[in-house]
Amino acid sequence: MAFQKPPGTQDVLPGNSETWQFVEKTARELCRRFRFREIRTPIFETTELFQRGVGETTDIVEKEMYTFTDRGDRSMTLRPEGTAGVVRSYVENKLYGEPDIAKLYYIGPMFRYERAQAGRYRQFHQFGVEAIGSADPALDAEVIALGFSFYKDLGLSGVTVEINSVGTPEVRAAFRAKLLDFLTPMKDSLCKDCQSRMERNPLRVLDCKVDQAKFEGAPSILDSLDEECEAHFARVRECLDAMGIPYAINPRLVRGLDYYTHTAFEYKAQGIGAIDTVGGGGRYNGLVAEVGGDDRPGVGLGIGLERTLMLLESQGVKPDAGSGVDVYFIAMGERAEREAPGIVHRLREAGLAVERDYQGRKTKALFKAADRAGAKFAAILGDDELDRGEIALKNMAAQEQRQVPLSGLAETIKSIITE
Amino acid sequence: MAFQKPPGTQDVLPGNSETWQFVEKTARELCRRFRFREIRTPIFETTELFQRGVGETTDIVEKEMYTFTDRGDRSMTLRPEGTAGVVRSYVENKLYGEPDIAKLYYIGPMFRYERAQAGRYRQFHQFGVEAIGSADPALDAEVIALGFSFYKDLGLSGVTVEINSVGTPEVRAAFRAKLLDFLTPMKDSLCKDCQSRMERNPLRVLDCKVDQAKFEGAPSILDSLDEECEAHFARVRECLDAMGIPYAINPRLVRGLDYYTHTAFEYKAQGIGAIDTVGGGGRYNGLVAEVGGDDRPGVGLGIGLERTLMLLESQGVKPDAGSGVDVYFIAMGERAEREAPGIVHRLREAGLAVERDYQGRKTKALFKAADRAGAKFAAILGDDELDRGEIALKNMAAQEQRQVPLSGLAETIKSIITE
Repeated sequence: MAFQKPPGTQDVLPGNSETWQFVEKTARELCRRFRFREIRTPIFETTELFQRGVGETTDIVEKEMYTFTDRGDRSMTLRPEGTAGVVRSYVENKLYGEPDIAKLYYIGPMFRYERAQAGRYRQFHQFGVEAIGSADPALDAEVIALGFSFYKDLGLSGVTVEINSVGTPEVRAAFRAKLLDFLTPMKDSLCKDCQSRMERNPLRVLDCKVDQAKFEGAPSILDSLDEECEAHFARVRECLDAMGIPYAINPRLVRGLDYYTHTAFEYKAQGIGAIDTVGGGGRYNGLVAEVGGDDRPGVGLGIGLERTLMLLESQGVKPDAGSGVDVYFIAMGERAEREAPGIVHRLREAGLAVERDYQGRKTKALFKAADRAGAKFAAILGDDELDRGEIALKNMAAQEQRQVPLSGLAETIKSIITE
Repeated sequence: MAFQKPPGTQDVLPGNSETWQFVEKTARELCRRFRFREIRTPIFETTELFQRGVGETTDIVEKEMYTFTDRGDRSMTLRPEGTAGVVRSYVENKLYGEPDIAKLYYIGPMFRYERAQAGRYRQFHQFGVEAIGSADPALDAEVIALGFSFYKDLGLSGVTVEINSVGTPEVRAAFRAKLLDFLTPMKDSLCKDCQSRMERNPLRVLDCKVDQAKFEGAPSILDSLDEECEAHFARVRECLDAMGIPYAINPRLVRGLDYYTHTAFEYKAQGIGAIDTVGGGGRYNGLVAEVGGDDRPGVGLGIGLERTLMLLESQGVKPDAGSGVDVYFIAMGERAEREAPGIVHRLREAGLAVERDYQGRKTKALFKAADRAGAKFAAILGDDELDRGEIALKNMAAQEQRQVPLSGLAETIKSIITE
C-alpha cells in the first residue's frame, strides 16, 4: 500500500525548501539587527498551559488543539501558537532575574485542527518575537517595525500596518458595556457569527465583514481610553513616525486573544485569498502572571510563514539561490571511475559543491544532467587524462573546454569562479 | 500556578541556541557541497507508516511512539525517526520519476517515549541524509564521508567510523542459522536482553556489552557474504580509502532496524557517557517497496544533534559567534530619548546590530549593559550633541570616545568596524 501525508500537512521538497531557507535566514538576520535572540521550546506542552495561556473560551482551545495522553498519562498538546511556550520558558528558567529584558524570537511548526482551506494548514509555521520585561511603548513600536522590515527585507511590497489600542482590562470592560448598548438593538439583524461573538467577545463583532455597513456610528474604543492608555498609544505612534513606518489606525482592530493590553497591530496584504491578515501581535501585560510568573509586561508578534510564502509567490519574488552546483564530475573509463571518489571528495573538502553520477549513465546523459543541475563546470576525467595528470574542464555557460592539471584542481576552479 | 516543560524535553535558550544554529549551519553547508537538498516532512504521520517503515517488532514501534487519535479519528504518531517520512514523501511525490537520484537531507525534531537518561531526550533532534535511487557502493561511501566531514567541520576530534556489511536478507537468514547454532548451547548463561534478542534479532546479541567475552569464536557475517555482497563491500572500502576516510571494520555492527542491506556504519566518540554511538546509518534496498513505492535502493544516515552538542561541550568547542551587538545606543535627555527610535531604526536598516535600553535605567547601568552585551560601540546621544548634530561614539574595547556627526552615523561605524 502507498502512504499519504496527514490531511492539512505538506511536504516541502527541493526547489521549494530553498525559499523556506531564504525566509528563515531573512528572519534571523533581522533579529540579529534588532537584537532578538533565538529560543526553542518543545513541540508539545502540557494542555493546561494553553488553556491558561491562550484562554479556555477561545476557538483554539475549544476546538482546534491536537491533544493527546502520553504514556505517563499526562495530557499534552501540540503547540497551537508560540507565545504560551515562550512565556512558560521565561518563567521556568527565571529569565526575569536577568538585568536586561528578554528579547526572544522563535521559528517553527504550530498545530491547529482547522477546516482545510487554501493557505491554511493544520501544521503551519510561524516566525515570532516576544519582548518581556518592559512596558516602554518604544518597544511596541520596535516590534511593529521589525515585522514591517521583515516583509520589506524579503522584497515584498504592499504590506500595510494597522494599529489600535485595546486599552487595559478596565478600559475594555467599560467600552464593552457601551458597545453592547449600541449592538443589542440590532442583534437579530446580525449574522450568526456576530451573535455568538456578542456574548463571548463583543469587540470582535466590529471586525465582521458581513455586517460592516451596520456599524457606522458605533462607539470607538479610542474614545474610551484613559489617560495612561492615551499616552502609551501616542508614544507608540510618535516612535513609528520617527522610524518612518507607515501605518493606519484601525479602531476596530482586535486580536483574538483576551490577554492583549494597549497596543494591537496587524500586517495586511492583498493577493493571497480571502484572509488578508499576514501577521500581527500586541502587548500582553497580564500574561506572564497568568502563566504563574512574576507580573512582567510583554509585547510580541507572530507572522505566518505559509502566508509569507504565498505572498512571495504571488509577487514573483524568488530567492537568488543559484543552482548551488559548482562542478559536475564525469568519469569516463574504469581507472577514472576508480579515482573519482577521491577527487570529488577533495573538491568538496575545498568548499566546492560537487555533483556526480551514481546510475552508470552514458556521457551524453551526464552532460544533460550537468545542465539540469545548473552546474558552473563539468569536469571530465578519462583514462588518458589520468595518465597525463590532467582533467578536462568545461565552462558550461561559455561552452568552452580546456585541459587543466589534476593537482590543484580545486584552486583552479575557485580562481575561475571568482575571476 | 507555574508550568513546567514536559518531562524529557528541553528549552534551548539564548547563549545555547547559537550553538544549535552553528551545528545546523554546518550541516547545511556540508550538504551544499555534497549536493544533498533539504526536504521537510510533517512532524506527525499516520501510525501505520512507522509500523511498516520502522518495523512492528522494533522497540520503537512497540514501546516508544507518541501515538494519538486526531479529531478526524485517524491514528497519528509523532515521527520517531526521519527515514520513514522521507521515503513516504519520495513515493507520494513520485520523486523516482525524475532522471536523477534523490539526494535529500533533513534537520528536525523526533519523538520517542524512552526512559529518561543523560543525553537522551523524548524530543530529540536529528540531522539525516537519504540518497534514493542508486545501488552504487560509491554512494554508500559518500554518505559515510559526509557524516565524517560533519564532525570534522564542527571542529570535533576523535570521532571514529565503524563499518560492516549485513548482506542481503538471504545472506542474513543463512548467517542467522549459523549464529543460533553457536549461541543456543550457551543460551542459559546469557543476560536477559541477549536471551530476548536471540529470538527477535540474534545478530544484535553479538553487540551485547555484558556478554562480550563469551562470543570469542562466534561466526562472523563477513564469512557468510555471497559474491555480490563481497564485491559491494570491497568497493565501499576502496572508495573510503580513495577519500582518505579512516574506518574500522566491525563484523558485529548491526543497526536496530530490519531493513538494512549491505552497508551498515556507525560513528563513535568518547566522553559523552555510556552510549558511545553518535550517529550511524546504512543501505536499505527493500524499504521503498515496503512503503508502497517502486523498488528503489537507498542509503542514508542519521546523526543525533543532542549528542553532537554534548561532544562540542566536552571538547570545549565554542562557535565563534561573537556577541553580535555592534552598537549599544544610549539616549540622555528628553529630546534625545524622543529621537532615539528613529536613529536606532536607521542604524538597523543599514545592517548594524543595535541594542538599547527599555527600562529607564541610569547611564552607569547602561554602560554595564553595553559591556554585558559585548557591544563594539556605545553611541551616546545627549540633548547638547543633538543641537550640534553630533553623537558620542565610544569604542568599548579601546575605551576611546570621540564625537562624530549624526548624519552618516551608520557609515562611520561600519567603516571603523571594517578598518
